[in-house]
Amino acid sequence: MTEEHAVDEVTLDDLPLRDDLRGRSPYGAPQLDVPVRLNTNENPYPPPPELVDDVTEAVRAVATELHRYPDRDAVALRDDLAAYLSSSTGVEVGRRQVWAANGSNEVLQQILQAFGGPGRSALGFEPSYSMHPIISAGTRTEWLPAPRRDDFTLDAAEAARIVAERRPDIVFVTSPNNPTGGSIPLPELEAVLEAAPGIVVVDEAYAEFSSQPSALHLLDRYPAKLIVSRTMSKAFAFAGGRLGYLAASAAVVDALQLVRLPYHLSLLTQAAARAALRHADATLASVAKLAAERDRVADALQGLGFRPVPSDANFILFGRFANPGASWKSYVEQGVLIRDTGIEGHLRVTVGTPEENDAFLEASKEVGR
Amino acid sequence: MTEEHAVDEVTLDDLPLRDDLRGRSPYGAPQLDVPVRLNTNENPYPPPPELVDDVTEAVRAVATELHRYPDRDAVALRDDLAAYLSSSTGVEVGRRQVWAANGSNEVLQQILQAFGGPGRSALGFEPSYSMHPIISAGTRTEWLPAPRRDDFTLDAAEAARIVAERRPDIVFVTSPNNPTGGSIPLPELEAVLEAAPGIVVVDEAYAEFSSQPSALHLLDRYPAKLIVSRTMSKAFAFAGGRLGYLAASAAVVDALQLVRLPYHLSLLTQAAARAALRHADATLASVAKLAAERDRVADALQGLGFRPVPSDANFILFGRFANPGASWKSYVEQGVLIRDTGIEGHLRVTVGTPEENDAFLEASKEVGR
Repeated sequence: MTEEHAVDEVTLDDLPLRDDLRGRSPYGAPQLDVPVRLNTNENPYPPPPELVDDVTEAVRAVATELHRYPDRDAVALRDDLAAYLSSSTGVEVGRRQVWAANGSNEVLQQILQAFGGPGRSALGFEPSYSMHPIISAGTRTEWLPAPRRDDFTLDAAEAARIVAERRPDIVFVTSPNNPTGGSIPLPELEAVLEAAPGIVVVDEAYAEFSSQPSALHLLDRYPAKLIVSRTMSKAFAFAGGRLGYLAASAAVVDALQLVRLPYHLSLLTQAAARAALRHADATLASVAKLAAERDRVADALQGLGFRPVPSDANFILFGRFANPGASWKSYVEQGVLIRDTGIEGHLRVTVGTPEENDAFLEASKEVGR
Repeated sequence: MTEEHAVDEVTLDDLPLRDDLRGRSPYGAPQLDVPVRLNTNENPYPPPPELVDDVTEAVRAVATELHRYPDRDAVALRDDLAAYLSSSTGVEVGRRQVWAANGSNEVLQQILQAFGGPGRSALGFEPSYSMHPIISAGTRTEWLPAPRRDDFTLDAAEAARIVAERRPDIVFVTSPNNPTGGSIPLPELEAVLEAAPGIVVVDEAYAEFSSQPSALHLLDRYPAKLIVSRTMSKAFAFAGGRLGYLAASAAVVDALQLVRLPYHLSLLTQAAARAALRHADATLASVAKLAAERDRVADALQGLGFRPVPSDANFILFGRFANPGASWKSYVEQGVLIRDTGIEGHLRVTVGTPEENDAFLEASKEVGR
């Protein structure tokens, strides 16, 4: 029996772990200490000194209240996020239509807790963001994988047909899609929304890099279906701050308040995110630079004989590799960390600074295919 | 159909919400702006200026890296938590036996995701911390309520008998118990551990206020069963920082890494919590003051003809009220916010500063019973 083990001898096999977790490994890209890290789609530009100062002063101002629980409803932060969304997308949203959590993963988990769960299903078009099936499994929501075209674009008519047939409670549409990079035009998204019997989550983690308008433009037409999720981790250069958010009808926000853990967003997170939002113009100035670099890197990859997938985001999926795992390792050995997302024949590189991108392109010349 | 609604007309009834959430209200004590707030068991003493400075400087130091994801495993923070637990309890634990999340609620949710869920059950001795059944429901774990004695103490023999009979996958023992205040002695806890077929979570959110030794002393005997959860929200005066943690066998920590959302703990949370831990001695100096005030308030309540329940924590449950809801409102009207936890005939007051406690005791003279 387990009592016979000393505390340092107990293993997972000795624990009453859920059966569906046995043999699994924790999610996450390797965190390696190499000179050029282009593996997790972060913004390569550090926060400007003014932002660092403002975050620091915001924290100092609230730190005297650290002994008190934070505003459970994060009202001021949601006001600021609503203002940012309204001005950046042209679609007017208010605080009651906005919700925030510790990264978009927690936002997605709350959506699945409210609208998914045992006996319900979620559908996504693969390859896509691998946390969608993982968070579905974590909430015991059945995962229904649906295909993309061979070129990784979404066939909207086929997608609508599958959604109408499978009738998932939740549909995920990632736009731009991670890890492939393409966006879905609004008319095609609308075909999926028309077909969906339940919730449609449009994951716009990379929206700021995209030339397509936000799905928010469809919110007024599909208020009981559409949820648009966003993050400050990518364009906003705030991955370390962990702030994801969404816009939807106020009723959806009411629903999420039934499943959120109370006081989930710390005083510091709320204050720091608000400070970062005040510097949106400065931070987002990097977006145009990164988009130009993305196009330069894609062209250069093409010139080297690779096949980059057209991207609307801050990363590029590219092939073809006979053995992506071995090629990934060859990049690491050259001091460049990119991502093997498990797509046959492909690797994904995040767009970095011009210097990082040059280092990546140099390494690409040496990598076996 | 729902599409006919404008975005501001959609209600919860129009959404495909899970049936078990219909009609529910969000958890949480009313957040009212009154002069004396004694309702959520916070430490009433603000962080000392040195702690504010240190948290601020720690944030400034890491803010330049906000564009990068944080350490997913929070290694340095877990080192510091392990050192604090080892020195404060006398039980040596290391980083691999410690895990942290955004408040102990998230810690408990991860435990339920790993060891509970559909087809599994969790048992607690009521009245106790109301989030235990709520988080169980949120993870679709069947909740099995078990009784305490009429005086709110735990009858260990009867508890062990019920656990042996119901065979829950997870047992919660809250010590000191919230909202009633009493601790469970280790020999009695051991009776429950012996009877339990699965995991036993000892929720020690208020342990620093207690005269009982920590359940950590039993970890070596029950390494595949025992999880001790803790929080920095109470004695540590860090409720706004949202940092909960646990100690268990390293295998339990491995299990939680299968269900945790990646990068769940922000760079700022990790840095600020480490800074706060460096000031543990100063912060925890308030514990003795609060314990002395607790005893003074209990005596005074007794003198006023109330019946305070003996407490080992920083709050007091007291009765008897013919109508606790009406009496709670009478306190609010006098500028004192306490908690109606739903226990018949009782209200709960957090121990505040001497001035706050005096205001509470003054108001108590005016309150109808």
